Amino acid sequence: MGKNTIQTLRSSFKTIWRLTKTNILKTNKQLLLKKRPIGLPDNDTWKLIETAVSEIEEGEILIKCEYISLDPAMRGWLNDVKSYIPPVQISEVMRAGGVGKIIASKHTYFKKGDYVYGQTGVQQYVVSDGKGYHKVDPTLAPLPMYTGTLGMTGMTAYFGILEVGELKEGDAVLVSGAAGAVGSVVGQIAKIKNCKVIGIAGGEDKCKYLIDELGFDGAIDYKNDDIALKLKENFPKGIDVYFDNVGGEILDMALSRLALHARIVICGAISQYNNTSEVKGPSNYLSLLVNRASMKGMVVFDYAKDYEKASIQLGQWMMQGKLKSKEDIYEGIENFHETFLKLFSGEKLGKLVLKVSEE
Amino acid sequence: MGKNTIQTLRSSFKTIWRLTKTNILKTNKQLLLKKRPIGLPDNDTWKLIETAVSEIEEGEILIKCEYISLDPAMRGWLNDVKSYIPPVQISEVMRAGGVGKIIASKHTYFKKGDYVYGQTGVQQYVVSDGKGYHKVDPTLAPLPMYTGTLGMTGMTAYFGILEVGELKEGDAVLVSGAAGAVGSVVGQIAKIKNCKVIGIAGGEDKCKYLIDELGFDGAIDYKNDDIALKLKENFPKGIDVYFDNVGGEILDMALSRLALHARIVICGAISQYNNTSEVKGPSNYLSLLVNRASMKGMVVFDYAKDYEKASIQLGQWMMQGKLKSKEDIYEGIENFHETFLKLFSGEKLGKLVLKVSEE
Repeated sequence: MGKNTIQTLRSSFKTIWRLTKTNILKTNKQLLLKKRPIGLPDNDTWKLIETAVSEIEEGEILIKCEYISLDPAMRGWLNDVKSYIPPVQISEVMRAGGVGKIIASKHTYFKKGDYVYGQTGVQQYVVSDGKGYHKVDPTLAPLPMYTGTLGMTGMTAYFGILEVGELKEGDAVLVSGAAGAVGSVVGQIAKIKNCKVIGIAGGEDKCKYLIDELGFDGAIDYKNDDIALKLKENFPKGIDVYFDNVGGEILDMALSRLALHARIVICGAISQYNNTSEVKGPSNYLSLLVNRASMKGMVVFDYAKDYEKASIQLGQWMMQGKLKSKEDIYEGIENFHETFLKLFSGEKLGKLVLKVSEE
Repeated sequence: MGKNTIQTLRSSFKTIWRLTKTNILKTNKQLLLKKRPIGLPDNDTWKLIETAVSEIEEGEILIKCEYISLDPAMRGWLNDVKSYIPPVQISEVMRAGGVGKIIASKHTYFKKGDYVYGQTGVQQYVVSDGKGYHKVDPTLAPLPMYTGTLGMTGMTAYFGILEVGELKEGDAVLVSGAAGAVGSVVGQIAKIKNCKVIGIAGGEDKCKYLIDELGFDGAIDYKNDDIALKLKENFPKGIDVYFDNVGGEILDMALSRLALHARIVICGAISQYNNTSEVKGPSNYLSLLVNRASMKGMVVFDYAKDYEKASIQLGQWMMQGKLKSKEDIYEGIENFHETFLKLFSGEKLGKLVLKVSEE
């Protein structure tokens, strides 16, 4: 084969050439958004494809993604509506936070062998200029925890209950989705701050977990208890802070038990995310007037400048044994869809994480 | 008639005796709550009775009520539910704010001839120990104004927009019920603070009034305009503060046009007060999350310690011609019921006042 022929081949198969040149010819499994779901995502929502991992340029890093964070908010990113973040586009890699290892680097700050957290997306490899990534230390805590209690989940809980909820010592606190990733951290922080904390969760096991494992003062099983009655019993003087992850009927019942000057933190509304009809608005919202109470929405990204401070505090509490972190880890990028649905079926406990490639 | 007989009569007709003794045997027309209404009050809701005015004791005053304040909030006081104030009881005098003249006094602070504002109730005379009353000066402003812009209405507008709404110069402000007592003052205060102000009102005349008389930047006629479209046109960058007097669909449409960090002041929900079915909750409440916005309820009584400061400021603005006050005055305690209904029919402009006795 003459030199000319080789050059022709090279220019024809540019990608292969670039990959061969750096010896990182790898296959990347990527989960793309195929079709916007109406209601709960189904088999048609995503498709898994395989692509070649591209070579990195100057200033870039190649991350091998290991753990992907699965969060209820991701459901909202599938809708073609204006929100706090643009929707994922059709044929785009599904957006997700993830932790991984840098396996190649032409970057001055991020080095080969570093572990990082960032918006990796649901895929096995990602090339990045490093923007939006930060290093994490796998010797201090297990990697999946950086998607949860030591990651966005922990940040959401921390700023949500302390800043948006303006938590004060002695407050009577109600948390919904209390056995979930954010809710379980919110409740524990409120306990650390000497508050009375009642969690709402689905099923006896989760309720037992809240009380026995996480130290909540009480739990309400929304699948079996008379919620309104239990709220009355548990909050004889009313709710000072309600941290809402679920919306719907539970938000309405909480509204009807507010104390004077109560604060409601609107962190999510998981009961409404897969609605095919109109969202249920809180009919008892005039309780805000009667009780001079407030209802305030939050998006964790607004607190980015203080993430470090919060991480240090959360890490300290964990080391002191005051804060427990629970991850529910599933394996295989092929299983993304069915794992994702566990967010809404109530099957999981704590932070839902998907391992997408081997360490 | 012997002395004994007279004494017997005296003890039998104690009231008459007491009144006769002080020569103020007067008839008091009082409006009592007869039956709690379902939906809009009807002919069965109240009954007018006549009683004798009782004699004042040491430390008391007798007030001749002149003007009664009619407010949407009064509808809420008729419901037998826990609220920021106990409900009016059956057979009790209907609660209302009012201004009147002291015509007899055995009080150290309040003197005969003083004019006062307080919770007189819907009646022509009231005996009080003076608690909750304060003097007003009829030479500075017409008496009815003390039930409105210089009274609770003005206080509600002042603290609602400035403190609860956290108004900042340059904010884009939306006010519903804008031609009403509170709304018209809210909008004018926001103009004084160099904000862009759009009011929502019913009908062309009221909209014209908002722009031509009160200096609003624009008005939306909820009876004839496409509200959502008008909101989009008027708030290209979103609503910074929404002062809500009406609730219902308009609250929902405002929620869908919020700017980042918007504040919604929940002052009332006149569209929902006479509901016979469940209150309509704001289905777009998740806009609070997306926009990190807040929705906060208010009750004016909480600001009592600062009423004086606010009164002085409102009075100054009026004298400077920056703040206009409009009272819609009707006459005759017999006409209470039909006048009260004007609050909900949209027939009146500004503050609704009922003159219950001659000056």
